[in-house]
Amino acid sequence: MSSQMPPAHPFDDDKLKEECGVFGVIGVSDASNFIALGLHALQHRGQEAGGIVTHDPETGFNQMRRFGLVRDNFTSADTMAKIPGGIGIGHVRYSTAGSKGQTAIRDVQPFFGEFSMGGAAIAHNGNITNALSLRRELIERGSIFQSTSDSECIIHLMARSMGRNIPDRMEEALRKVEGAFSVVAMTRTKLIGCRDPLGVRPLVLGKVGDGWVLASETCALDIIGADFVREIEPGEMVVINGSGVQSHFPFRPAASRFCIFEHVYFSRPDSQLGGRSVYETRENIGRELAKENPVDADLVCPVPDSGTPAAIGYSLESGIPYAMGIIRNNYMGRTFIEPTEQIRNMGVRLKLNVNRALIKGKRVILVDDSVVRGTTSRKIKEMILDAGAAEVHFRIASPPTAWPCFYGVDTPQREKLLAATMSEEEMRDHLGVDSLRFISLDGLYRAVGEANGRDSSCPAYCDACFSGEYPVAPSDMIEDGFQMKTAAE
Amino acid sequence: MSSQMPPAHPFDDDKLKEECGVFGVIGVSDASNFIALGLHALQHRGQEAGGIVTHDPETGFNQMRRFGLVRDNFTSADTMAKIPGGIGIGHVRYSTAGSKGQTAIRDVQPFFGEFSMGGAAIAHNGNITNALSLRRELIERGSIFQSTSDSECIIHLMARSMGRNIPDRMEEALRKVEGAFSVVAMTRTKLIGCRDPLGVRPLVLGKVGDGWVLASETCALDIIGADFVREIEPGEMVVINGSGVQSHFPFRPAASRFCIFEHVYFSRPDSQLGGRSVYETRENIGRELAKENPVDADLVCPVPDSGTPAAIGYSLESGIPYAMGIIRNNYMGRTFIEPTEQIRNMGVRLKLNVNRALIKGKRVILVDDSVVRGTTSRKIKEMILDAGAAEVHFRIASPPTAWPCFYGVDTPQREKLLAATMSEEEMRDHLGVDSLRFISLDGLYRAVGEANGRDSSCPAYCDACFSGEYPVAPSDMIEDGFQMKTAAE
Amino acid sequence: MSSQMPPAHPFDDDKLKEECGVFGVIGVSDASNFIALGLHALQHRGQEAGGIVTHDPETGFNQMRRFGLVRDNFTSADTMAKIPGGIGIGHVRYSTAGSKGQTAIRDVQPFFGEFSMGGAAIAHNGNITNALSLRRELIERGSIFQSTSDSECIIHLMARSMGRNIPDRMEEALRKVEGAFSVVAMTRTKLIGCRDPLGVRPLVLGKVGDGWVLASETCALDIIGADFVREIEPGEMVVINGSGVQSHFPFRPAASRFCIFEHVYFSRPDSQLGGRSVYETRENIGRELAKENPVDADLVCPVPDSGTPAAIGYSLESGIPYAMGIIRNNYMGRTFIEPTEQIRNMGVRLKLNVNRALIKGKRVILVDDSVVRGTTSRKIKEMILDAGAAEVHFRIASPPTAWPCFYGVDTPQREKLLAATMSEEEMRDHLGVDSLRFISLDGLYRAVGEANGRDSSCPAYCDACFSGEYPVAPSDMIEDGFQMKTAAE
Amino acid sequence: MSSQMPPAHPFDDDKLKEECGVFGVIGVSDASNFIALGLHALQHRGQEAGGIVTHDPETGFNQMRRFGLVRDNFTSADTMAKIPGGIGIGHVRYSTAGSKGQTAIRDVQPFFGEFSMGGAAIAHNGNITNALSLRRELIERGSIFQSTSDSECIIHLMARSMGRNIPDRMEEALRKVEGAFSVVAMTRTKLIGCRDPLGVRPLVLGKVGDGWVLASETCALDIIGADFVREIEPGEMVVINGSGVQSHFPFRPAASRFCIFEHVYFSRPDSQLGGRSVYETRENIGRELAKENPVDADLVCPVPDSGTPAAIGYSLESGIPYAMGIIRNNYMGRTFIEPTEQIRNMGVRLKLNVNRALIKGKRVILVDDSVVRGTTSRKIKEMILDAGAAEVHFRIASPPTAWPCFYGVDTPQREKLLAATMSEEEMRDHLGVDSLRFISLDGLYRAVGEANGRDSSCPAYCDACFSGEYPVAPSDMIEDGFQMKTAAE
Repeated sequence: MSSQMPPAHPFDDDKLKEECGVFGVIGVSDASNFIALGLHALQHRGQEAGGIVTHDPETGFNQMRRFGLVRDNFTSADTMAKIPGGIGIGHVRYSTAGSKGQTAIRDVQPFFGEFSMGGAAIAHNGNITNALSLRRELIERGSIFQSTSDSECIIHLMARSMGRNIPDRMEEALRKVEGAFSVVAMTRTKLIGCRDPLGVRPLVLGKVGDGWVLASETCALDIIGADFVREIEPGEMVVINGSGVQSHFPFRPAASRFCIFEHVYFSRPDSQLGGRSVYETRENIGRELAKENPVDADLVCPVPDSGTPAAIGYSLESGIPYAMGIIRNNYMGRTFIEPTEQIRNMGVRLKLNVNRALIKGKRVILVDDSVVRGTTSRKIKEMILDAGAAEVHFRIASPPTAWPCFYGVDTPQREKLLAATMSEEEMRDHLGVDSLRFISLDGLYRAVGEANGRDSSCPAYCDACFSGEYPVAPSDMIEDGFQMKTAAE
Repeated sequence: MSSQMPPAHPFDDDKLKEECGVFGVIGVSDASNFIALGLHALQHRGQEAGGIVTHDPETGFNQMRRFGLVRDNFTSADTMAKIPGGIGIGHVRYSTAGSKGQTAIRDVQPFFGEFSMGGAAIAHNGNITNALSLRRELIERGSIFQSTSDSECIIHLMARSMGRNIPDRMEEALRKVEGAFSVVAMTRTKLIGCRDPLGVRPLVLGKVGDGWVLASETCALDIIGADFVREIEPGEMVVINGSGVQSHFPFRPAASRFCIFEHVYFSRPDSQLGGRSVYETRENIGRELAKENPVDADLVCPVPDSGTPAAIGYSLESGIPYAMGIIRNNYMGRTFIEPTEQIRNMGVRLKLNVNRALIKGKRVILVDDSVVRGTTSRKIKEMILDAGAAEVHFRIASPPTAWPCFYGVDTPQREKLLAATMSEEEMRDHLGVDSLRFISLDGLYRAVGEANGRDSSCPAYCDACFSGEYPVAPSDMIEDGFQMKTAAE
Repeated sequence: MSSQMPPAHPFDDDKLKEECGVFGVIGVSDASNFIALGLHALQHRGQEAGGIVTHDPETGFNQMRRFGLVRDNFTSADTMAKIPGGIGIGHVRYSTAGSKGQTAIRDVQPFFGEFSMGGAAIAHNGNITNALSLRRELIERGSIFQSTSDSECIIHLMARSMGRNIPDRMEEALRKVEGAFSVVAMTRTKLIGCRDPLGVRPLVLGKVGDGWVLASETCALDIIGADFVREIEPGEMVVINGSGVQSHFPFRPAASRFCIFEHVYFSRPDSQLGGRSVYETRENIGRELAKENPVDADLVCPVPDSGTPAAIGYSLESGIPYAMGIIRNNYMGRTFIEPTEQIRNMGVRLKLNVNRALIKGKRVILVDDSVVRGTTSRKIKEMILDAGAAEVHFRIASPPTAWPCFYGVDTPQREKLLAATMSEEEMRDHLGVDSLRFISLDGLYRAVGEANGRDSSCPAYCDACFSGEYPVAPSDMIEDGFQMKTAAE
Repeated sequence: MSSQMPPAHPFDDDKLKEECGVFGVIGVSDASNFIALGLHALQHRGQEAGGIVTHDPETGFNQMRRFGLVRDNFTSADTMAKIPGGIGIGHVRYSTAGSKGQTAIRDVQPFFGEFSMGGAAIAHNGNITNALSLRRELIERGSIFQSTSDSECIIHLMARSMGRNIPDRMEEALRKVEGAFSVVAMTRTKLIGCRDPLGVRPLVLGKVGDGWVLASETCALDIIGADFVREIEPGEMVVINGSGVQSHFPFRPAASRFCIFEHVYFSRPDSQLGGRSVYETRENIGRELAKENPVDADLVCPVPDSGTPAAIGYSLESGIPYAMGIIRNNYMGRTFIEPTEQIRNMGVRLKLNVNRALIKGKRVILVDDSVVRGTTSRKIKEMILDAGAAEVHFRIASPPTAWPCFYGVDTPQREKLLAATMSEEEMRDHLGVDSLRFISLDGLYRAVGEANGRDSSCPAYCDACFSGEYPVAPSDMIEDGFQMKTAAE
């Protein structure tokens, strides 16, 4: 049931889209300001919509949900005065538009429920792979869903739980869901955080003054001047109130399978993952890429902005000078007029422009983080050749993306993924470049810190998008007809 | 939990406010246009917000809910294209602001629920007097409420029903609620209407082409060119689909107690009630008022616009010329700047102006439909005297309003009602007029067609606001401390 | 040159439209609030747009111009804080859309000009009949026009004047313009008002506390609690500052020719004109109409709202009961969705509904103020007959409107005026009613106070729309091909 | 006179602000789309507001002016349909807020004037240094100014010219103005471009299909797929119509003095100036800076984004690795909530974050393009030290900015410029860094292509902001009390 139109969808830049970022804070004087800043720092994880819930003894729970960017919705004093309180949580989302129809404001998190012992709100990063069957069962028993979101299941499971307090109910609810989840939740007096047993999505703990913070990434701690304490561990639940942080592990233990693509693209380069800056990891990936796939050329240029750290690494390793051969327009918005016939290839030109005078006559290595459908790569190649480049060599800082993600990332259907239907050579032909090379899966593991590469018996990361090996069977999708990888593939 | 601010509340005109109007249509090509027009005709029953739900085989259920007037929200082609389909229902609401805090868009009807056999939407005019205890019980069992509205109980009771189709579930749900309800509801293929056993609020059936219409009043049939078929009877439920209208009576039979204030003020003068135009009934009330309370004067002037028909009746009966002594500004909005000190009594002047040259030196009879708190009456009296009137006589077309309504009308707390704490003579003193007279309860009954006046053993109408005799005990309010009338009063 | 779209044009109700209302105030603490209230009271003179200019020693001249109603644009504290000061003027306008294309915000008055001795702003009600030739000449000499408005000529003529102060320059400018003008203007310290020599449009002077007010009508004095001092006389200019009101008569004297249609329709019924309330004048017109055009019938019904006072007069004179046979929807907006095929005659139904139960079987006299193109009259007749009326008799409170107005009223081209091409009997046939009668021009003069009717050698009013006798030759229009009345007509 | 509020001013990033970008096109089917794209590419030259004027034979001149970014205002099909035509010009502006009060929409260019031979519109990049005295004289003679903009003088001078066609009038007008101007203008059939005799601001000519383009920079040609033809020469005027481009030189010849700061900061790195990409020039500046001011360190980091090309050059010259030590938030908006006490140094953190894990313990060279007031530099230094850097060395890619610009750049008053009151060593102390070095003026001249450095007898560029040597005396400012550099300085 559609009720309101979200803004038009962004310019297609052929990237995988992280679906969410979460943030929570307790023990500060003005939670909503902290949350707005934290969500602003996490905006790269979701640009479609955002929401904040706070609690204040006088006004009770306060909620605001809006389509659009944090900077446009959560910055006026008037607005912030409507969400007062010293505790709160927030969420930014990117939706899987197209497949399920357009998002309504009802689908924007956090979700709120009133229980007999009081209210609670939750915000979820990840994806529940058995959401459809849970939803069917809950409706059968009389629950009324307000959204199309998989995350709403959690709050209904909590409502039906016999648990005597909200953390107990949340535990019980989360034990029934499958898939990936990094959740922040709140009651009137408690901030709660929890990661699924595999720890697919990130969640970190910080300290600001006497208060505590939970956030998807450390960059959201930096912006509010909070200290990074530690990562929440896979399978851990923390309950934070005035007396401090209590931790326990309610799920059956499992080996960690953190999403390797967070290192490649999703996380911000200034965030820390596994004790290292994401920027350095990406520079390492570029170095590894240069070792595996050298080529003689005049310039190493990134496809901005996501290819930049790997391009710097490639340049440092190869000794070929780094240069900004493609310039990004910082004022790019989400929509633009349809190009007329006179103006071709407008899409990419709105955002990127080739540094024509620099590129002319040069042999150029273009470093990008990934190739999904190849649409943008083709256009960039055309722009570069049109500017007079002598040769174009693509170097990609991740292995071929051949499988969809079911753990909270918006991926095209498998048949739309270039690498699902073409070999590397066919892709090179399709893109029309002089050479095209991807980093190997082993190379990527080495770059992120696994000195011996990928241990195929027990991989340290979730790399399903590259390998097709799904650590949790996507049961809704299998029911819907999705074919898992067979031994032959 | 507040999520969005409704527009500021209207200029206080010291009137009771009907809380809702409902409309439904089936079997037309373009349901949303019909609903928008019908709601526009019912706008006097609720100006705060409106909502429409339709169903279309292609897009499924479509919903739009907005603060403000129908003319401002449901008129653009773009908007209407988002709520396509040949069946739908709509609702306009006036809220009880202040007592429970501000309305959120979540409180705007129709409410929608997805059940195992498909979705349903309902819109409700009236008030459920046991809503709080129902709500408590439903939350205890795991239902999650999205609004603060009493009407949401109905949809949750339906969700938990074991009934095999939606009309059965609706019957079961409505048997559990107490109070006043005129409900329109819809499934993908059926339009449903139902009135509570006492028939407190109106609901009529109309026919337009091959389709059918349900509406709070006949004026909503006129605007779309529909024929008035009949009133839905107290306690009747009708289920309408392609094969026609099926009627049954699911509740224990009871004597009808239609709201007598619908005749006095709520309904539009061009609507028909009980086989007569509301305008003629009000003219009758004016005639009866003149018979009971004659006075020598130069002019009979209405307090516009609601006092107009009774003033015409008073003039016709008394022979004293009718004149427009007070002129209403047709461009009045809902808010205006705060008056500065230099400008006193601004509120009423924004809306009404005395025809000074006409009034000067005259003995004026002012006819109004009711006196609630007396705030506006005092200001009007001051304006009239300031313009140089020789005498001011108030004549009121209803008995003193001394008790709150619990059946879907927004009334002040009892102690704010002028007639709850003052005698007629004290009120005259308080208002500072030369005379003040109300029609008697018997006179009112005669004017609405009961030739013998009120039968106190079995009154034909709900007149609780005048008599304090409540046909359904308001159980939530009693639990909350409300004192029913004692034998002594 | 179009720059911004005004809101869509209002529902056609087949009325002539006054093009403007003006208001000015000096010597108060908070001029903008007074102006907003005054313009709100004058909203019937122009609903398309409004503007306010104030002056404050600290911020200088401040201006705000907006499309839409005063209540929607000039009511928030934030907005009003942007136009501070103790002196200011305002304007509401209705535009002549269609003929000249759509209004831009640049066309919304007041107009402002910076001169060597300081700034001035003016607002104009009326029409300058030699504006095109003035404009041509000014452009030739290097003036740059910012609007398409005839009124902008005045400010350019002032800019080029050699006068040493602004009142002198305004005098010089106004001596060069022909046509109708009631102007309010302001400098940093002075409020100025002026009427053209014939006094075609109204302008009144009021006193509020120690301050002074100029307004198109007395109803705008009432709303701010100002006392009505007197009308500005035809050909008079008043200059008001801290020391009081100075009056002089800069133009060649001429016999007064006030617009008689102000009495019939334009002015608000609660305003005073010529020492009498407009309401009483209209009641008189109704009485005169009844004397000239009696008919046997059951009910006298007004076409609301403008026909109401004349209908009351007709009823009082004829003894036939007055009744509200047609009810007006108070929530009517300016636009609505296009009716689908299933819904016919939607336009008028959005605004008016017949009181079907009242009208059925009755012989009805419908009283309206005027017939312009006859479009609405036909629809009303159909509604009345559709409701089962036995007979329909139209009585019109003005003579046939057969000529366009060139003095500040929006009239259709001559060939669109029903009375320009049809006799009274042909009009009756065209409208399809049992009888149709207009008041005579003599009858109208008697009703407005000329006991002997119209003195054709020297008429006391401008009645060009009825008589075709234009007191000022419309030179631009004649150049454009307009045919004045010939001796034969 | 203020009429409308522009959006709040951007986050202060301590940069000089270019005040304008201009664009014009003729001979295409859909000029407004081209202009919107061109202005989007020029958005870095002005973010406060933008405007477009087009001409179409049917609708005449069409204009749209808006506060905010091109992407937010000029992208909907509805909007663009209101500015049809095959010829048009556009403008983006950054205003000098604070000094003269807030910009009104009336101040947004292009400006339009109706002359006796037809209309013309102009858009101006630069600043007229005798605007105040011209304005005074024009008002004295009866011109009415609509804006506070210096550029409006040009259109009034044109209106008063006796020239028989618009190019002649424009020539005559421009001969009377002093200062810097790159102007694009249009009539119904001609596109006109003109640069002041010194050529202070850029203007280039391009060809797209059969049409022609004028733009501030070549990046605006690239976005629409136009070919770069040549730069308009200092003192040249081109008039373009269906028959092609006609060029002449109406001013007294002078030696070119192009703004050297366009190379340092204003122009986009992918634009071409003087036959070379601006990016390469900036890389050169970085190399020159490294030669002049070497230092031993671990990393060369840019202050993003404007310091990036010079930092790459510094790294390439010095051999010290380049790294992204500071990460920019791409979702930064123009405003954000006021930081609470708990959150310090919020301003810069909203936009920039230090890559803490990378920086810790390192000796860091920070390369920035300029230091104006030093406010941001101090905050960045604090962030870097707070993250644990061992040493911080600032290297600045321009000489100390010690003088204000009067040729179209928004500069603080002289006393606010850090370099106007402090020596290099005092600045180092003030910023609290280990070392601070600026490139020399000679070094900068070498980097931009003058192998022998600056010829002080006849400098090839305008470098007044560094040297205090103004090529055109700023007469308005001198009248206002500005002290030119004396021989002693």
